[in-house]
Amino acid sequence: MNYIGGRDLKDYFKMNVQDIVADITTNYLTEELFLAKDFGQLPDRSQIIHIISELRQVMFPGYFSHEKLDCTLAPYFIGQKLAIIFESLSKQVELALLYNKAEAKENAKEEAERITVDFLKELPKIQKVLLTDIQAAFDGDPAAGSKELVIFSYPGLYAIFVYRMAHELYLRNVPFIPRIMTEHAHSKTGIDIHAGATIGKYFFIDHGTGIVIGETTIIGDNVNLYQGVTIGALSTRGGQSLAGVKRHPTIEDNVTIYSGASILGGDTVIGHDCVIGGNAFITSSVEPYSRVSIKNPDLYIKGKSQDL
Amino acid sequence: MNYIGGRDLKDYFKMNVQDIVADITTNYLTEELFLAKDFGQLPDRSQIIHIISELRQVMFPGYFSHEKLDCTLAPYFIGQKLAIIFESLSKQVELALLYNKAEAKENAKEEAERITVDFLKELPKIQKVLLTDIQAAFDGDPAAGSKELVIFSYPGLYAIFVYRMAHELYLRNVPFIPRIMTEHAHSKTGIDIHAGATIGKYFFIDHGTGIVIGETTIIGDNVNLYQGVTIGALSTRGGQSLAGVKRHPTIEDNVTIYSGASILGGDTVIGHDCVIGGNAFITSSVEPYSRVSIKNPDLYIKGKSQDL
Amino acid sequence: MNYIGGRDLKDYFKMNVQDIVADITTNYLTEELFLAKDFGQLPDRSQIIHIISELRQVMFPGYFSHEKLDCTLAPYFIGQKLAIIFESLSKQVELALLYNKAEAKENAKEEAERITVDFLKELPKIQKVLLTDIQAAFDGDPAAGSKELVIFSYPGLYAIFVYRMAHELYLRNVPFIPRIMTEHAHSKTGIDIHAGATIGKYFFIDHGTGIVIGETTIIGDNVNLYQGVTIGALSTRGGQSLAGVKRHPTIEDNVTIYSGASILGGDTVIGHDCVIGGNAFITSSVEPYSRVSIKNPDLYIKGKSQDL
Repeated sequence: MNYIGGRDLKDYFKMNVQDIVADITTNYLTEELFLAKDFGQLPDRSQIIHIISELRQVMFPGYFSHEKLDCTLAPYFIGQKLAIIFESLSKQVELALLYNKAEAKENAKEEAERITVDFLKELPKIQKVLLTDIQAAFDGDPAAGSKELVIFSYPGLYAIFVYRMAHELYLRNVPFIPRIMTEHAHSKTGIDIHAGATIGKYFFIDHGTGIVIGETTIIGDNVNLYQGVTIGALSTRGGQSLAGVKRHPTIEDNVTIYSGASILGGDTVIGHDCVIGGNAFITSSVEPYSRVSIKNPDLYIKGKSQDL
Repeated sequence: MNYIGGRDLKDYFKMNVQDIVADITTNYLTEELFLAKDFGQLPDRSQIIHIISELRQVMFPGYFSHEKLDCTLAPYFIGQKLAIIFESLSKQVELALLYNKAEAKENAKEEAERITVDFLKELPKIQKVLLTDIQAAFDGDPAAGSKELVIFSYPGLYAIFVYRMAHELYLRNVPFIPRIMTEHAHSKTGIDIHAGATIGKYFFIDHGTGIVIGETTIIGDNVNLYQGVTIGALSTRGGQSLAGVKRHPTIEDNVTIYSGASILGGDTVIGHDCVIGGNAFITSSVEPYSRVSIKNPDLYIKGKSQDL
Repeated sequence: MNYIGGRDLKDYFKMNVQDIVADITTNYLTEELFLAKDFGQLPDRSQIIHIISELRQVMFPGYFSHEKLDCTLAPYFIGQKLAIIFESLSKQVELALLYNKAEAKENAKEEAERITVDFLKELPKIQKVLLTDIQAAFDGDPAAGSKELVIFSYPGLYAIFVYRMAHELYLRNVPFIPRIMTEHAHSKTGIDIHAGATIGKYFFIDHGTGIVIGETTIIGDNVNLYQGVTIGALSTRGGQSLAGVKRHPTIEDNVTIYSGASILGGDTVIGHDCVIGGNAFITSSVEPYSRVSIKNPDLYIKGKSQDL
């Protein structure tokens, strides 16, 4: 059998290709993960990224597209965008629901459409919350200059925007799509917020690269995070047996956590109005109004530098 | 009113869409941030990213495009590229100038063109500085292999290249665009260099993910930075009142800062020829020729591992 | 001479463009790095990224494209993909071989084709190893939910996949391309694995942003890494003289390294079955079965937070 058509390929390739094809085919056959897709089709990641882009245009018209809106035209713009998003997102949700259930799912289409509409109904509320996030960034960063710049170019706001969308789908038990959304933001910003986390208003992330916020994290209002902060689990070696268990911390209102700090553990509570200094490593609860910092001059300083 | 045209959408969506549209329209109306764009149009991020790509082709011809240049053809290639960049960049600068000023700006177009030409006049000088950055990367990384590989694939060099472009626009008080440029590099490399920072020659960043260099940082010549280094502010809770204040450190010539180190505060000066060890956390000045390292075996080591 | 054609550009630009062109041309002439390309053409990065995408479709059909495969169709699909990859990759390998050698290389095309076929012959084996990596992610992350989600959206798996491909080309001394591949993954995931590292089966990276694994690192089977882990060199100020020297650690089987830990030095061995706690900074070897953690409450905690 000639799998490679009439192409003019080198003999060495022709000599070997059939063996490679046979080995890969055998892999497909022996591991169902590869060919299990005949009971359904996976959601399309590029479609989901496109939906995020459409949602962003509805939330912040004129920033990421060229429409010139005024009060008269706005409803038509929004209505048309929502219709497009509804069609596209409900199809992806349907695929996700169908794929994840081996049993036949006759009503998947209806369920997907109901979930999508319920999601869209949250948009005006999310839009208001995003305004508080923008305000927090403007208040928190001396280099911001303007709120437009925050909307336009702050990776922290982008990650928060995507998280707030993905979280609504996570709450409605949509498989795959929330994670695809937040991993897209993770790739673009270096900020990894699990769609399952619960995060209040006036949330500000500065710089952001390396931030990790775990699935069962609870964060209150008016919290500031800097680059490299981990809000994570103490140990995940329990694996799938820990699914659903609260294994990430709770951060109360008005907390600032500076760069590189790690806060770990499902029972760890950072009380309201705390300030956690850079690189702090915290595995137990901290009282409200505390200020935590690593002991500062735990450093060796030698005159005349030598090789480290 | 039927905002959604004649599309065949599900009843549940039709029942709800008008309320969602009305709520989002109300949000637009109550928060001017959304619809304030009628006095101007924002710069176009995709255009700015394209300009970065064109600038890179002028700086490093043949590396990121397919032209075959020789000494005779080079002037035509450069001239044509500069003409394209001039047209495109002066338009974006004009948009940025117009958007940022509520007052009428009759001479915005002329100002934008003047700024753009002044920027282009810096290119030959920047190109020479970039050669020193390439040399520093080649000298500093045993895995480099060749300078071409540095140009071709080192994220650190890309972030430095974009910073050096953005810095020239920042110095000319162009709004929006410098930040859009550096955030683009941040997204691609994980390296967040504010366009306002002042950085000398022979600058080398290895790996780079997680690096943050704040707006008022001053860095001398021949400085090496590794991944996860923060050169930041001590506290930014003063918010917009701190705009313009020097709140980030000064790093003198010939300093190496290893991975994960944080250097904080506007009065902090790292003297020339210092070596700052990995994960050091420094909030006060260090004398020249010092070697700073965290106390090493501040570790608990137990035989037989248990759960952390 | 009018380099800029008949375009209607502003006078200020016309007055200055010839000087800028002359200066950049002079830069090209005085630094051969810019115009040394006449003895060869560099590999094309966008082609190499496309090859990665094609390879991923062969490894995980149906996840990143829309083919519906079954056992009958699979061989045709694989055969066609391999033919495309062979043509495209052997061309890029040839360019890389030619560029890197000043001496004439008559047999570059044959060598490139031989290397490419040898690379393709490894694919079935790599595919099996990737299955163990997927299993490790599913076992290690309580939030995984399904193995499909791991394949579909885990940045750690993507970085490992690209590394495993690039490593095979590195072993065959292909210049440029392994680094272009791993830097592409670095840009998308924040995970920087050098193609030269040696990494065993059941390798799991969670979150991953900021991870650096150096060129001469050796990692055993069943190792888990979290975000911000550096497996690096102690000092690279030896520069190119250190090329080829083992300067990165060895990590034995069944080791877990939590977020932000740094393990440095070519003689450092982390024994099998160790657990290295978050933010640990290790520059010497650790016995098997050890558990290493930083001293925990090295923190100042004050009631009532004040400015840091």
